[in-house]
Amino acid sequence: MSKHTTANCAAPHVTLVGAGPGDPELLTLKAVKAIAAATVLLVDDLVSDEVLKHASGSARIVHVGKRGGCQSTPQAFIEKLMVQEALAGENVVRLKGGDPFIFGRGGEEVTYLQSHGVAVKVVNGITAGLAGATSLGVPLTHRDHAHGVVFVTGHAKHDDSDIDWVGLAHTAAQAKLTLVVYMGVKHAAELQRELCQGLPGHTPVAIVQNASLPHQRHAVCTLSDLCDTLTQQALGSPSVMVIGDVLQGLLALQTPAPVEQPLIEQPLYEHPLLDHPQAQRRFAR
Amino acid sequence: MSKHTTANCAAPHVTLVGAGPGDPELLTLKAVKAIAAATVLLVDDLVSDEVLKHASGSARIVHVGKRGGCQSTPQAFIEKLMVQEALAGENVVRLKGGDPFIFGRGGEEVTYLQSHGVAVKVVNGITAGLAGATSLGVPLTHRDHAHGVVFVTGHAKHDDSDIDWVGLAHTAAQAKLTLVVYMGVKHAAELQRELCQGLPGHTPVAIVQNASLPHQRHAVCTLSDLCDTLTQQALGSPSVMVIGDVLQGLLALQTPAPVEQPLIEQPLYEHPLLDHPQAQRRFAR
Repeated sequence: MSKHTTANCAAPHVTLVGAGPGDPELLTLKAVKAIAAATVLLVDDLVSDEVLKHASGSARIVHVGKRGGCQSTPQAFIEKLMVQEALAGENVVRLKGGDPFIFGRGGEEVTYLQSHGVAVKVVNGITAGLAGATSLGVPLTHRDHAHGVVFVTGHAKHDDSDIDWVGLAHTAAQAKLTLVVYMGVKHAAELQRELCQGLPGHTPVAIVQNASLPHQRHAVCTLSDLCDTLTQQALGSPSVMVIGDVLQGLLALQTPAPVEQPLIEQPLYEHPLLDHPQAQRRFAR
Repeated sequence: MSKHTTANCAAPHVTLVGAGPGDPELLTLKAVKAIAAATVLLVDDLVSDEVLKHASGSARIVHVGKRGGCQSTPQAFIEKLMVQEALAGENVVRLKGGDPFIFGRGGEEVTYLQSHGVAVKVVNGITAGLAGATSLGVPLTHRDHAHGVVFVTGHAKHDDSDIDWVGLAHTAAQAKLTLVVYMGVKHAAELQRELCQGLPGHTPVAIVQNASLPHQRHAVCTLSDLCDTLTQQALGSPSVMVIGDVLQGLLALQTPAPVEQPLIEQPLYEHPLLDHPQAQRRFAR
């Protein structure tokens, strides 16, 4: 075996693993394998305990969360710890909510690790915005309603590099793009005001908190009712906001029917197509 | 048990399952479970045979692909077949490349199935654009380079509802958004021309064909060299194009170093930090 190959096999390495939105069944097979093989896991606090059940009993689990009112673990500390453990020969997994390369700071960590001689693998995960919409039965793209989808952070709002939300809203309206805003609840008032300058106020919005977890909660409203709805429903972080016409059907269900068209509740099992003999047999059980 | 509960348990149902980008290890645990439980599978032809190994030996597998020069299966036929099999009591899984709700026509299928009294579950998958970028070590968002990412189809180009690519490019430039274009190879000339009106010609682009599969191929170039590169490298469908400054590092690696700064090849195992005793021990093996 050449020296080069030997070095590659033994080289210190870290795997950044996407733990998905929360539901442990949304882990990929590759993520499960990586978690099971890890000797050290650095775990964000949006990662559920169920996900950690795949870890070896002898693995060292370090919680490096940044939420819950506690002192956050500085990013620099996390990065140094990864390098230290990788160089010490540990099989290091950095476990992140969602996907490491969609709002996961994975890019920064790859750069840091590589610059310190540590090889990096990345395992994708299902991002919360997708899982949140899916849990409501809502597609992010649709041939009639949406040619694409934008995942954008509402958190960069007050950075040096402000996003032009009015421009983004215009583009979303023109190109028929669904908007999915991460970490936007705090800035909902500004988002609502600015997005309403490029999108109609009646554009449907869904706010999904704790997407895919048993305690998921959500609300559906119009863009012009976003802030009122957040307050009334007491929805907070971690939430994703899905904005666009893909939600039309869901919004219609929320809207009370006009008096002249009373809602007739028609149970699923009375649907005419279920007169199919096989369906009848199954319902008769 | 109430009639309502019974009806719900026995109700005809279909599960739309995201098979991910190709690599069978990128399936979620939930997808594997659904595939294993299915008695009938309707399978798109971007789904690899490895994925189908999770299916029961007694399951009926129906290929409903739309590629490879063969006669495509009409969408209406697929939808009717799903309803028919679900009403016949089969456990139907519709297996789609990527995610059913990102360019997967999942939304249309949900509407059709529900309107025919068939309940629908959706299992998310890793979308090809994400996997393609990840395979190159490129994050879709980055605190320095990209506040978000747009997944958009290049296929809708000649629909009634043309996308204003110039406007989208301006928005991407202003709001720092990575663009990921699906099904855009055919229209690459127009995309290049129009995107170059809103984004600098030196914006990096990666084209990834067959993302995550063993026969994946890719090229990295600038936006103004997109079409020439596609031709020179003979890259075709199925491909995703990733466009934006998150690719700067990768593009720099492609660019020959100037003569006054010769490239010095420094093997990983000579990195100063690898003087750490534990690392030394591992290399000595």
